[in-house]
Amino acid sequence: MEAVYDEKDLNRLKEEVCEANLELAAKKLVLYTWGNVSGILREANLMVIKPSGVPYEKLTPDMMVVLDLDGRMIQGDYNPSSDTPTHLELYREFDTIGGVVHTHSTFATAWAQAKRSIACYGTTHSDYFYNEIPCTPELTSEEINGDYERNTGKVIVRTMRDRDYNAVPGILVANHGPFTWGKDPGNAVHNSVVLEELARMAQLTISINHDITGIQKVLMDKHYLRKHGKNAYYGQKVNKEQQR
Amino acid sequence: MEAVYDEKDLNRLKEEVCEANLELAAKKLVLYTWGNVSGILREANLMVIKPSGVPYEKLTPDMMVVLDLDGRMIQGDYNPSSDTPTHLELYREFDTIGGVVHTHSTFATAWAQAKRSIACYGTTHSDYFYNEIPCTPELTSEEINGDYERNTGKVIVRTMRDRDYNAVPGILVANHGPFTWGKDPGNAVHNSVVLEELARMAQLTISINHDITGIQKVLMDKHYLRKHGKNAYYGQKVNKEQQR
Amino acid sequence: MEAVYDEKDLNRLKEEVCEANLELAAKKLVLYTWGNVSGILREANLMVIKPSGVPYEKLTPDMMVVLDLDGRMIQGDYNPSSDTPTHLELYREFDTIGGVVHTHSTFATAWAQAKRSIACYGTTHSDYFYNEIPCTPELTSEEINGDYERNTGKVIVRTMRDRDYNAVPGILVANHGPFTWGKDPGNAVHNSVVLEELARMAQLTISINHDITGIQKVLMDKHYLRKHGKNAYYGQKVNKEQQR
Amino acid sequence: MEAVYDEKDLNRLKEEVCEANLELAAKKLVLYTWGNVSGILREANLMVIKPSGVPYEKLTPDMMVVLDLDGRMIQGDYNPSSDTPTHLELYREFDTIGGVVHTHSTFATAWAQAKRSIACYGTTHSDYFYNEIPCTPELTSEEINGDYERNTGKVIVRTMRDRDYNAVPGILVANHGPFTWGKDPGNAVHNSVVLEELARMAQLTISINHDITGIQKVLMDKHYLRKHGKNAYYGQKVNKEQQR
Repeated sequence: MEAVYDEKDLNRLKEEVCEANLELAAKKLVLYTWGNVSGILREANLMVIKPSGVPYEKLTPDMMVVLDLDGRMIQGDYNPSSDTPTHLELYREFDTIGGVVHTHSTFATAWAQAKRSIACYGTTHSDYFYNEIPCTPELTSEEINGDYERNTGKVIVRTMRDRDYNAVPGILVANHGPFTWGKDPGNAVHNSVVLEELARMAQLTISINHDITGIQKVLMDKHYLRKHGKNAYYGQKVNKEQQR
Repeated sequence: MEAVYDEKDLNRLKEEVCEANLELAAKKLVLYTWGNVSGILREANLMVIKPSGVPYEKLTPDMMVVLDLDGRMIQGDYNPSSDTPTHLELYREFDTIGGVVHTHSTFATAWAQAKRSIACYGTTHSDYFYNEIPCTPELTSEEINGDYERNTGKVIVRTMRDRDYNAVPGILVANHGPFTWGKDPGNAVHNSVVLEELARMAQLTISINHDITGIQKVLMDKHYLRKHGKNAYYGQKVNKEQQR
Repeated sequence: MEAVYDEKDLNRLKEEVCEANLELAAKKLVLYTWGNVSGILREANLMVIKPSGVPYEKLTPDMMVVLDLDGRMIQGDYNPSSDTPTHLELYREFDTIGGVVHTHSTFATAWAQAKRSIACYGTTHSDYFYNEIPCTPELTSEEINGDYERNTGKVIVRTMRDRDYNAVPGILVANHGPFTWGKDPGNAVHNSVVLEELARMAQLTISINHDITGIQKVLMDKHYLRKHGKNAYYGQKVNKEQQR
Repeated sequence: MEAVYDEKDLNRLKEEVCEANLELAAKKLVLYTWGNVSGILREANLMVIKPSGVPYEKLTPDMMVVLDLDGRMIQGDYNPSSDTPTHLELYREFDTIGGVVHTHSTFATAWAQAKRSIACYGTTHSDYFYNEIPCTPELTSEEINGDYERNTGKVIVRTMRDRDYNAVPGILVANHGPFTWGKDPGNAVHNSVVLEELARMAQLTISINHDITGIQKVLMDKHYLRKHGKNAYYGQKVNKEQQR
């Protein structure tokens, strides 16, 4: 079955994905080519993603790779990011997301390497992530030797099973690094930037007080809901996710 | 009762508050829109504050919001910062302050999340803050579910009860982050920058010597008074607070 | 026996070595003149290296020093880097390398000073270094008082004896700092940048989880081989070492 | 007795001291006005120092203050730095130094606040400082309440009594921060930059290995002497102190 869509929408998405990748570099979340952003055209089930291993300073919208949700290449002169099957898995399972980001940003990766979830230590965290930012379990040898990148997506989905992916827009993959998502590629990058800062604050927090535990549920609720609940009163009632 | 004031003074304050907000971004104390600065026109009991959730690069003086000390909007096309009731509480209780700043700066927030006051570990600290920078107790569930932002102001005032707010121009709100104040908006920002650096030095200090305690009272007195006492001999006898 | 080579090749190498030294400064791996890069013209057994103690901002290709592999100066108006005998030892022993870098970059040097190898805590590491980044044993008094810089090269070679220098393109010299190598000077600098970031992530990782150990061998194999093995599928099949 | 000197030499020194102060800011060792550099004209026993509390961006050579070694002002429209008596004490006691620097740079200050000398953990350290960088004992109440800034100089001199001030060109004043010196103002700033980096590396080193101790004496000797001994072979035989 052919996907039906407006070519203009796809081109706009390529621009958006390219710009979001550049924003990742501008925010210093990536060293060399260590990160990738994708976006999805839901009406056509097409994913747009960064080509593999191309330096950020050379990226242009027409270098973006287009695939269908089964991973077949539809457009593009380059190999897609090697993490493509992980992105695809997330789009298939998280129905309402519009963008996915993977980085090896320093502090978030350190938590992933430490195999420790980031507890909610303060309101900066609960403004964006409801409760802890989970760390997945390790993949098994079979999962690693099998369809590794897809299995990375599956362990993310499994770990998120009892959580609301809208309220927890990111995760740490054990031994690897963070993945985030959002309503569009730019918002997913925004969540990556926030996750990195939360990871940094949390590392300092536990170094200052080794016995610290997460904040009260009532405070978590208060901050999350004043920004995201239906009675939210933060910001100017537009583009709520990017405001404080 | 109508407030009587010179419109020029209000406009000048809007410029000052706008500039102080931009300085917060320039000094890298804020990520995205995570911070806000206000100022007060004491003769008219009017507070000028940053609008909520507007990116710093778009701020102009005429976007500043003007409120009376009961929180009624007097001028402005935007919602004021969601932290407005906290700022108002501080202006009502600390008679001589002219500016208030709230940020989520990394190191100060880490101490607030660790729920630990910053002891005075050296003369850099005592040049600006007399004795420790206190961390408030946590708010109760009732305070969080009630008038949350105003109660945040109240817990600050309560924690400062036995301290001189001129000698301790800032505080850590537990689980949340720092608030500072000063004689005007620019000076309050200056104190935020200093607090962040003190928090960073203190985190390193305790990591280098786990058993370290605060400095002698006599040294604390010496440094605080050589800059702030009536016999102060630091600087050029003008704009004393911003000198060393 | 006279070395036979094309003068153009030597000039191209001088440019490459000069540029690689400047890249070291651009990537903030060196303070003042604390680092040096060399390259080799294998067909002529000639090494090109930075002059000793010249500030980076003044370096030009014609200031590079040319030596044969016995350390005799062939061209150059300046003294070569004082670490020259270490570079020479590595070129003599590691047949296929084309560039060597030495720095005192902050985090890698801290691990070298701590006399601790950097275990492989995650896939960022295993994408570049197979298994741990070893720390050499200390030199003996005799080695220090003897031909010190050459003995530094020898302890590196000794420590690498049971490892593949292509799969472990760098090492920590105990009490001193990192050395890296690569197929050419630029690639050796790339490996220095990566090593510094790995050292930084690793320091944070062990601070977040004191009991953490290295990752599973199967994951190490997977990541190293998807970038470097004969069935590598990362990147665009060109310039593989610098891609992700 | 009138000091006899060439006015051109004094003017040149004012320029040098001004430039060295600006270099302190450029190297990010100071926040606001938290630091000062001085120089001395030995033939006239005149010290040139930064004015107190003037922002770095406004400094010009003619704003520098000139004093004799008893602290009498000879030239200048501004108050000298409040740390002037400390600088004077060092010039009086350390015969061959030509410049003095005081900062509150983050990492060096953290060690001073932790009241811990920085052991020599590696060759980066021993290239510049022979053996540990000492931390002074605390001043007594009498010393603080008396001629405080001069007593700060005296405790530095006392702590250096059994050390060679040429081989240990800096110190940590307990609870306060670092002082460094050198053959001229620029070299003293160079030593401040190096001290800050050594303090940063050392903090990381002890965090990576809590049981680490200083390096072998033989290695300390080797590195210090290859740069500073009479048979030094590092650099190009000019401006040796600033090379590697």
